[in-house]
Amino acid sequence: MHKSDIEIAREAKLLPIQEIGAKLGIEPQHLMPYGHTKAKLNLDYIDQLNGHKQGKLILVTAVSPTPAGEGKTTTTIGLCDGLNRIGKSASACIREPSLGPCFGMKGGAAGGGYAQVVPMEDINLHFTGDMHAISAAHNLLSALIDNYIHWSNEIRLDLRRISWRRVVDMNDRQLRHIVSGVGGPGNGFPMESGFDISVASEVMAIFCLAENLEDLQQRLSRIVIGYTRDKQPVTADQIQASGAMTALLKDALAPNLVQTLEHNPVFIHGGPFANIAHGCNSVIATKTALKLSDYVVTEAGFGADLGAEKFFNIKCRKSGLTPDASVLVATVRALKMHGGLAKDQLEGEDLEALKKGLSNLGRHIRNLGQFGIPTTVCINRFSGDSEAELEMIKDYAERHGVKAYVCNHWADGSAGAVELAEAVAGLVDNQQSQFRTLYDDELPLWDKAKLVARNLYGAEDITADMKVRNQFKQFQAEGYGHFPVCMAKTQYSFSTDPKLMGAPNNHVVPIRELSLSAGAEFLVVVCGEIMRMPGLPRVPAANNIYVNDNGDIEGLF
Amino acid sequence: MHKSDIEIAREAKLLPIQEIGAKLGIEPQHLMPYGHTKAKLNLDYIDQLNGHKQGKLILVTAVSPTPAGEGKTTTTIGLCDGLNRIGKSASACIREPSLGPCFGMKGGAAGGGYAQVVPMEDINLHFTGDMHAISAAHNLLSALIDNYIHWSNEIRLDLRRISWRRVVDMNDRQLRHIVSGVGGPGNGFPMESGFDISVASEVMAIFCLAENLEDLQQRLSRIVIGYTRDKQPVTADQIQASGAMTALLKDALAPNLVQTLEHNPVFIHGGPFANIAHGCNSVIATKTALKLSDYVVTEAGFGADLGAEKFFNIKCRKSGLTPDASVLVATVRALKMHGGLAKDQLEGEDLEALKKGLSNLGRHIRNLGQFGIPTTVCINRFSGDSEAELEMIKDYAERHGVKAYVCNHWADGSAGAVELAEAVAGLVDNQQSQFRTLYDDELPLWDKAKLVARNLYGAEDITADMKVRNQFKQFQAEGYGHFPVCMAKTQYSFSTDPKLMGAPNNHVVPIRELSLSAGAEFLVVVCGEIMRMPGLPRVPAANNIYVNDNGDIEGLF
Repeated sequence: MHKSDIEIAREAKLLPIQEIGAKLGIEPQHLMPYGHTKAKLNLDYIDQLNGHKQGKLILVTAVSPTPAGEGKTTTTIGLCDGLNRIGKSASACIREPSLGPCFGMKGGAAGGGYAQVVPMEDINLHFTGDMHAISAAHNLLSALIDNYIHWSNEIRLDLRRISWRRVVDMNDRQLRHIVSGVGGPGNGFPMESGFDISVASEVMAIFCLAENLEDLQQRLSRIVIGYTRDKQPVTADQIQASGAMTALLKDALAPNLVQTLEHNPVFIHGGPFANIAHGCNSVIATKTALKLSDYVVTEAGFGADLGAEKFFNIKCRKSGLTPDASVLVATVRALKMHGGLAKDQLEGEDLEALKKGLSNLGRHIRNLGQFGIPTTVCINRFSGDSEAELEMIKDYAERHGVKAYVCNHWADGSAGAVELAEAVAGLVDNQQSQFRTLYDDELPLWDKAKLVARNLYGAEDITADMKVRNQFKQFQAEGYGHFPVCMAKTQYSFSTDPKLMGAPNNHVVPIRELSLSAGAEFLVVVCGEIMRMPGLPRVPAANNIYVNDNGDIEGLF
Repeated sequence: MHKSDIEIAREAKLLPIQEIGAKLGIEPQHLMPYGHTKAKLNLDYIDQLNGHKQGKLILVTAVSPTPAGEGKTTTTIGLCDGLNRIGKSASACIREPSLGPCFGMKGGAAGGGYAQVVPMEDINLHFTGDMHAISAAHNLLSALIDNYIHWSNEIRLDLRRISWRRVVDMNDRQLRHIVSGVGGPGNGFPMESGFDISVASEVMAIFCLAENLEDLQQRLSRIVIGYTRDKQPVTADQIQASGAMTALLKDALAPNLVQTLEHNPVFIHGGPFANIAHGCNSVIATKTALKLSDYVVTEAGFGADLGAEKFFNIKCRKSGLTPDASVLVATVRALKMHGGLAKDQLEGEDLEALKKGLSNLGRHIRNLGQFGIPTTVCINRFSGDSEAELEMIKDYAERHGVKAYVCNHWADGSAGAVELAEAVAGLVDNQQSQFRTLYDDELPLWDKAKLVARNLYGAEDITADMKVRNQFKQFQAEGYGHFPVCMAKTQYSFSTDPKLMGAPNNHVVPIRELSLSAGAEFLVVVCGEIMRMPGLPRVPAANNIYVNDNGDIEGLF
């Protein structure tokens, strides 16, 4: 009988967070403790690190996700532990989980098995309050906009064209579309509006791209909240909101330090969506980790077509970070699903299905090569995988020019990731990264979207109706042409059809709408139905959660 | 030139919170630090204190508030510092400020001058995250209700009679009344709804009355969220929400410890409204403080007619706390306003206006006497007060059977409150409190409201239309007759007319509506217009807030 993640996490003896800090050379006074096993690093201290030499940056990404699971976070943690096990100084950087979804489907987001980050309940619930601060900053802007309209609206904001909504860190479908401001003149103007989940907030994306407090304040000031009756864009700055928003985010901007089960340092900071935003942890956390460790392992959301693409084209482009290697996570089970099997057909060897599904892995390998960095495949082992299946993946990878390593960190912790760790360390120490983004800033917005669709998704072309094409022209004309595009499409397929597994070719990517993130500095290109506010399932996990007599939470994980 | 509160607070050298804990005999491992100068006390540790002897409990309350200010929190802190200065072991217990209003009117809620609690910016902003946890727990229930309706609604909840709204810790008038669930069948059922500010949540009231985690979970389960089509009340328990709500509140329920400028211990925990809820900090914080200090100074919201009445009739009744003394705060300026002066007429001596306004003080003194505890008046001195004015108040108080002391803690810290501290210590050490609530549980709900209105407000009677009278009967019949009433009326007058200053007599209190707080265990009796969601002013403080180059927040206080 396997122990559950929460059982393993509860049995762990955690070190005081000051001892984890000490491994990175951080003196205790530079840590702001949150309890005994979580801390934030003072921003002042981070400023002092400016001269430090940089460690090597390793991105963990994955094949297109399936219900069978890949284990990207688990691999990020396992690799970090593995690197430490072979004598390297390594830390990990991952995203903060959103609180809301915990009450929908059972499950956390802090790794799994013996490759976990702890304290896992805290990390999955309120943690150090960053998500709440981001929600508050977002909703303060909302309140200030409507208050401005209520009292004067001198700049004649068009009440039908306010694009800034509200957020809550909760799966709450009832709030997707609302009419606010009803009830008479004392209660504002009636307007169509709605709530997104907090991780979908542009404030989250900005938070994760900001270099420091000043940059944060600047970016917030540039958020476009809507348009005037004369169709002129209006920014947060014009209603004097960005300073107070920054005040709310001041403490949150300091990165959070926690530990793996093996007491290695992990930074968990920021967690934007990987479709309508760029899907990776904060620039501040990554840069700080690079100054304090020789190797930093980080991850990006969803499959490499979404997460890695944005990590490179948005985060690295904007921040000047240069990744040294990527690790592509695959599982036998996921690839068999890409080969056509259903979730209940995954027991037992099926080399034919696997062979068919390998095309998904192949496309991702090819894609990562376009960014000029060395790649390794991590086969995240499940107990039912056959040797022949594992060998088939290794062979396939090798024929595509990369090495694959079978890993077992879920069951064995760092011991299960030693081979991978040695390989990755070898790659980054011996091979010079030739990192390049996929396109230059100057390429027009339409062409950027087309290039991603053709070069990475295997699409024939992109399409859009006249309204959307005009929007492209409008944003280009308004001076946003140098922004990267942030492609929002299903994570389940290279195409926009979530049922099209493997590596589809010659499909067409329809662009449904555009959404400008002027503060985050990217243009969201929405391809298909993208959910910014999830709902709860028929039987939400919340129904079975409670606090037991020991004061422990039951039913959450 | 006086220093501002924020300047004084920034100049303060704070002790590590472990040293403050040590003053109370708390070993460092029982404190969960939040940064270096804030901590929560472990709930497990609090359980261990059960056998400890109890300290003396002193309630600070005030005359009816005016725009001139009274300084209740300042006096609570000053008295705590004063008691420590004269060699007593004393701590203070106050409410957590709400974050939202900070962005409306400039000003914090952590005392003022040299009688402050620090770190004041943290306390006024996210602090240790309790307010966010309470908002999340409240909104989880909202989401679960609507999700239940969306998927099945087997118990036939009446969509027109859902009384559970949503909350946000923000002044946002636009959300007072909304229509949610629009946009088609995938997005819920269209319903009238709205948002209150978080401190108005019943979850906040429950949080502040809960004895422990188990009691919290029980109380949450009894929240009435609405009615079925057959007019049967439906509880949070029926949609299996209370366990998950408790999980969200688990960490928050541990009381927060901070320090005064003079390094004396202050518990800041919970902060319900003082009109639609009971307006004082958590029972857990007060009981913990009483086990760790010989004297505990606490405060209740608004004037004594609202705050003290509820402190006695709700908090003390429910928790078994017995107060040993009360301190009634008055200012020359406030009493002159009660005597008919406007805010711009307060400069210079005006004995006639003061004499007229003393009736307000007199009524509060008489009222406090009805609860059987010894009372002292604190005259919170302002620099413009004349000696003759101060003497007049002292004389008046003495003629009404209580002593009055002029205090100067705002300017001088503990040195300004020594006389008051000695008097209060003398009172509680030498006089036996004869504390009694104003009415017994058995008195019918209508009669309870009438008794409060007649005995404390000086009203002739209460009135209500047939609909409200029937509601009284309904709640009585449904088994809530033993609940205390929670009177929600304007804080500015003993009557329901905010312009009626002094001590009006023979007025009538119209009851507009009733609202059951079944988990908090009181019936809210709403007399007049009560705002559960404030709006922002024409020029909100937020417009001028920013983070300066040192990383300090400017413009917030």
